[in-house]
Amino acid sequence: MIKAERAQDPGIGSSFERPLDRLVDKDGSFRVQRTGGISGLREGFIALATMPIARLVVTFVCGYLGMNLVFGSLYMLIGVQHLGNADLTSLGGKWMSAIGMSVQTLTTVGYGSLYPNSPSTWTLAAVEGVFGILGFSLISAVIYARFARPTTRLAYCEQALIAPFKDGWSLQVRLANKRSTLLVEVEARMLMVMADVDEHGERLNYYNLKLQLDKVSFLPLSWTVVHPITAESPLAGLSYEELVARRAEVIILLKGIDEGYMQQVLTRHSFRYDEMVWGGRFIRAFSSSNGAMRLDLGKLSDHTLVQAPERLPKD
Amino acid sequence: MIKAERAQDPGIGSSFERPLDRLVDKDGSFRVQRTGGISGLREGFIALATMPIARLVVTFVCGYLGMNLVFGSLYMLIGVQHLGNADLTSLGGKWMSAIGMSVQTLTTVGYGSLYPNSPSTWTLAAVEGVFGILGFSLISAVIYARFARPTTRLAYCEQALIAPFKDGWSLQVRLANKRSTLLVEVEARMLMVMADVDEHGERLNYYNLKLQLDKVSFLPLSWTVVHPITAESPLAGLSYEELVARRAEVIILLKGIDEGYMQQVLTRHSFRYDEMVWGGRFIRAFSSSNGAMRLDLGKLSDHTLVQAPERLPKD
Amino acid sequence: MIKAERAQDPGIGSSFERPLDRLVDKDGSFRVQRTGGISGLREGFIALATMPIARLVVTFVCGYLGMNLVFGSLYMLIGVQHLGNADLTSLGGKWMSAIGMSVQTLTTVGYGSLYPNSPSTWTLAAVEGVFGILGFSLISAVIYARFARPTTRLAYCEQALIAPFKDGWSLQVRLANKRSTLLVEVEARMLMVMADVDEHGERLNYYNLKLQLDKVSFLPLSWTVVHPITAESPLAGLSYEELVARRAEVIILLKGIDEGYMQQVLTRHSFRYDEMVWGGRFIRAFSSSNGAMRLDLGKLSDHTLVQAPERLPKD
Amino acid sequence: MIKAERAQDPGIGSSFERPLDRLVDKDGSFRVQRTGGISGLREGFIALATMPIARLVVTFVCGYLGMNLVFGSLYMLIGVQHLGNADLTSLGGKWMSAIGMSVQTLTTVGYGSLYPNSPSTWTLAAVEGVFGILGFSLISAVIYARFARPTTRLAYCEQALIAPFKDGWSLQVRLANKRSTLLVEVEARMLMVMADVDEHGERLNYYNLKLQLDKVSFLPLSWTVVHPITAESPLAGLSYEELVARRAEVIILLKGIDEGYMQQVLTRHSFRYDEMVWGGRFIRAFSSSNGAMRLDLGKLSDHTLVQAPERLPKD
Repeated sequence: MIKAERAQDPGIGSSFERPLDRLVDKDGSFRVQRTGGISGLREGFIALATMPIARLVVTFVCGYLGMNLVFGSLYMLIGVQHLGNADLTSLGGKWMSAIGMSVQTLTTVGYGSLYPNSPSTWTLAAVEGVFGILGFSLISAVIYARFARPTTRLAYCEQALIAPFKDGWSLQVRLANKRSTLLVEVEARMLMVMADVDEHGERLNYYNLKLQLDKVSFLPLSWTVVHPITAESPLAGLSYEELVARRAEVIILLKGIDEGYMQQVLTRHSFRYDEMVWGGRFIRAFSSSNGAMRLDLGKLSDHTLVQAPERLPKD
Repeated sequence: MIKAERAQDPGIGSSFERPLDRLVDKDGSFRVQRTGGISGLREGFIALATMPIARLVVTFVCGYLGMNLVFGSLYMLIGVQHLGNADLTSLGGKWMSAIGMSVQTLTTVGYGSLYPNSPSTWTLAAVEGVFGILGFSLISAVIYARFARPTTRLAYCEQALIAPFKDGWSLQVRLANKRSTLLVEVEARMLMVMADVDEHGERLNYYNLKLQLDKVSFLPLSWTVVHPITAESPLAGLSYEELVARRAEVIILLKGIDEGYMQQVLTRHSFRYDEMVWGGRFIRAFSSSNGAMRLDLGKLSDHTLVQAPERLPKD
Repeated sequence: MIKAERAQDPGIGSSFERPLDRLVDKDGSFRVQRTGGISGLREGFIALATMPIARLVVTFVCGYLGMNLVFGSLYMLIGVQHLGNADLTSLGGKWMSAIGMSVQTLTTVGYGSLYPNSPSTWTLAAVEGVFGILGFSLISAVIYARFARPTTRLAYCEQALIAPFKDGWSLQVRLANKRSTLLVEVEARMLMVMADVDEHGERLNYYNLKLQLDKVSFLPLSWTVVHPITAESPLAGLSYEELVARRAEVIILLKGIDEGYMQQVLTRHSFRYDEMVWGGRFIRAFSSSNGAMRLDLGKLSDHTLVQAPERLPKD
Repeated sequence: MIKAERAQDPGIGSSFERPLDRLVDKDGSFRVQRTGGISGLREGFIALATMPIARLVVTFVCGYLGMNLVFGSLYMLIGVQHLGNADLTSLGGKWMSAIGMSVQTLTTVGYGSLYPNSPSTWTLAAVEGVFGILGFSLISAVIYARFARPTTRLAYCEQALIAPFKDGWSLQVRLANKRSTLLVEVEARMLMVMADVDEHGERLNYYNLKLQLDKVSFLPLSWTVVHPITAESPLAGLSYEELVARRAEVIILLKGIDEGYMQQVLTRHSFRYDEMVWGGRFIRAFSSSNGAMRLDLGKLSDHTLVQAPERLPKD
């Protein structure tokens, strides 16, 4: 029925023994479980550099408390009598001395109200001082790495629209930059995936969706990416029920340069059949006031419903 | 009247209910007010990394004083008697001890003339030491981020010139690199925006201006970007009054590679109708002496006035 | 015999007086011994930033111990009596004081149980403090540099296969990303090198191998790179014995963008004549389960053997 | 006489009132004196990050001594009696106490054998501690910046050769990578500048020199860049005397990707008329031994002299 030219597999694979839920998640990642991959220090560093800030703080606090506990225990094990000025009168005092010694060494503050006075405690202090410096260096590197890399956050409309366009219909998606740094030389590409499901699993078909405008020089406001549904479109002649049956998924790829970092960024987003509106028209999200442009990101998904034909036109 | 081909909207939008003041500011930024964007830690970091140095110093000094005040007050709250060696004889002495304790902990100097001698002060010191280390790490990261990223500073002439060129006329803009690092593989693009203003607001028309030379291999000296006004130019046949009436704005986009950082840079600049000289000729800004080239950035805007026709030629 | 068009020397050189073992090692590096190159601080830094983690730890521990030994000896040389509070009762006590002084200075902990009390020891302490700070700064920079740079780790099948493809045969290589960061816009290129060896040494011939698909948009799973053996292929009409005799080596070049770092990466891999299977078929390494894709990197080399003709078809 | 097509000015300028010595220096920089440029903190940072290592060490040592002298003097000015434990018995002792106080604060070691005991000294210590931390942070950033950026060092032959090539002649330049990191996807471009000098100054003519091979995939060994002198070459029909009279300068531009940093690098080099050999042939600089390639950078300029015609052939 569809005569649109198929695109080559973009590297995802085209046949699976069981149907996939969706190819691309809303955050742009692929749902892939990997076994046999590397999970070394670098992966740990990347995990720290990319985890949510709250989890990073918890991780860090636990690490800091843990280190002090470990080294404090070691001072206790060696014997607090090997620390100058230690409070030896009670177990509580001993622990306070041991933990205090650890704190002032790990942070390299070194008040000196407590100090090593035997080879064993000097050695432990020499080790802990290094752990402190290197640990905090690592934390600094993590902090820096979190900010030194551009991480584009694009806001997408919640639903793709089958929208009127000129004399016919189109598939429309609206997006805008959530961050305040400017994106320039932005290129968009739309890919449609439709599955043929049978008892052997699912076979995926990929189609490129031709865009009315696939490149803008700047992205200070919102951008509506439009795929006009012509006779060559894989959507031509389709009904909503067929989209559902064939588990249609529209993947949008965006490439641009983040001016704040002067570095290329790439993002992906996906709209599944149940995230499409069969007949809608976006309401403008930007305006002008006092001679300046004004963009309201909260309005990005706003649209009015319009009546769409049951089947999209074939020509 | 104008038969020049329109360019596609470069991503700014082409109709606004109220006229815009100008699209691109003199510093190359777009005047956009955004609501609903992200304003998280990253935005704070970028703000620190890009704010003027004087404001950064003030921010930092206030932060440092504030931190010492907060932690000093906390030591006061806990009671300075929990610090070894504290001066308990007077309120001034107590405050000096509390603030001094905070200073030596925050900077991790730790003289030890004052020191924690209770679980509560050890805990506070353990927290403050970490705040100190992380705070200064952040400052280091900010310092590094300020310098690690190329920020091209191009000097532009103050006014674009309608200048004689060969047998006809041209629109000329002159620019040079303010920094001492070299720009290479520099590409220029000129865009003209003219508005149709009516009671419904303003409709923007975009035109690409063809350049005589749109790429240079190096930019050690000044570069005069020239748009020859031929019959195809959107400027052909226009008078200065029409430029004003249509709120003409010339946007120049520059792309190049900063050799000091080996990274691509992008800049923008704009000349509004009131920043154009109707008849002028640039005076050379560079010369040679002792076998070397010599560039005087102070002369970049220097030009002599020449008589231009009321209306630019149509062919 | 072979009519395939030769490719130009890709920069390796095409005649050597003695045969080369292989051009590209399994880790993608070229086997080149260089004399007269630079070996400065930068090379040392790069060595630290790229050496295996275990060796880095050993290097660091030795450096730290060495520094403390050197500075400890210097304090002994000056005389420990110039340190306040030093234990002068025995040689062991003197050494403990000297080493302890060094430790607390190098780590900038500075307990102060020992302290300089003469111009000579103050000077030495001033020097050692700086060494400590700069040394640990360097270590921090090394740690950061290890993680800040994308280092793609691609898993390749152990052997290239001469595999059935459509109605004929092909050369196939399978690869996948070992890291969890995604590679996008991946381009592959295959190059074949065959030598003519005679008494004057060896003459290398380079051939580009045309690929069925040389670009994928994403690489979340495994990718089988296929060179169909058509009449134009340099492999057409060849037998395995000729591959061995001509010391055939297939070099595969991969270019892509690492999404975790948003930076371009380049890798190389090579399969020598003795790493090719004359007749094999890859067993799929990915599947789907619970609606998600699943990749098993351990299966990347898995293949079944098939019967291949003695000589590859000529058309 | 020369019918070769002129290239457009690559951005250097084409007329000067007095002759230039040379356009591009042997280190690839342009000889430009600039007035009116920016000379802010960034330029200072770049200066530190790019100056020779010996000068950086001297700068750093002077800065460190200077800081200690300044803060030591300030402690003297305030009065050393405001420091706990200070040696007040002699002027030398006072100075030792002041300088020692500064040293332990600036390095944040903080032995505490000396300590602030008045608001004035606490304030000064609070300031100096911050100066210390930030100063050393800056030094760390400089160290990191020195290594984090690829700085290609290409070795070029000392003289360009007019060398036999096939049945005719060519202009040849040989180069190799001095660093151990690999350059890939290397592109070369050759530009020739010849001047017409008269009483009004000098007018420069630019010509592109067509290369036999302008791109190599890898650069593990040496590469001889060859411009064959055909009838279209600007060198066709020229004699050495004309090269001298017209102050010929050959500029070679190299672009590639540094695999160690995965970043693009650009370099330039220039050969003036007095750095050309009229008749020479390069002696090979690489060989093979034990199955590996071997490159001797010391042989890069080695050539034998051959007899060249007085005038290069015209066709």
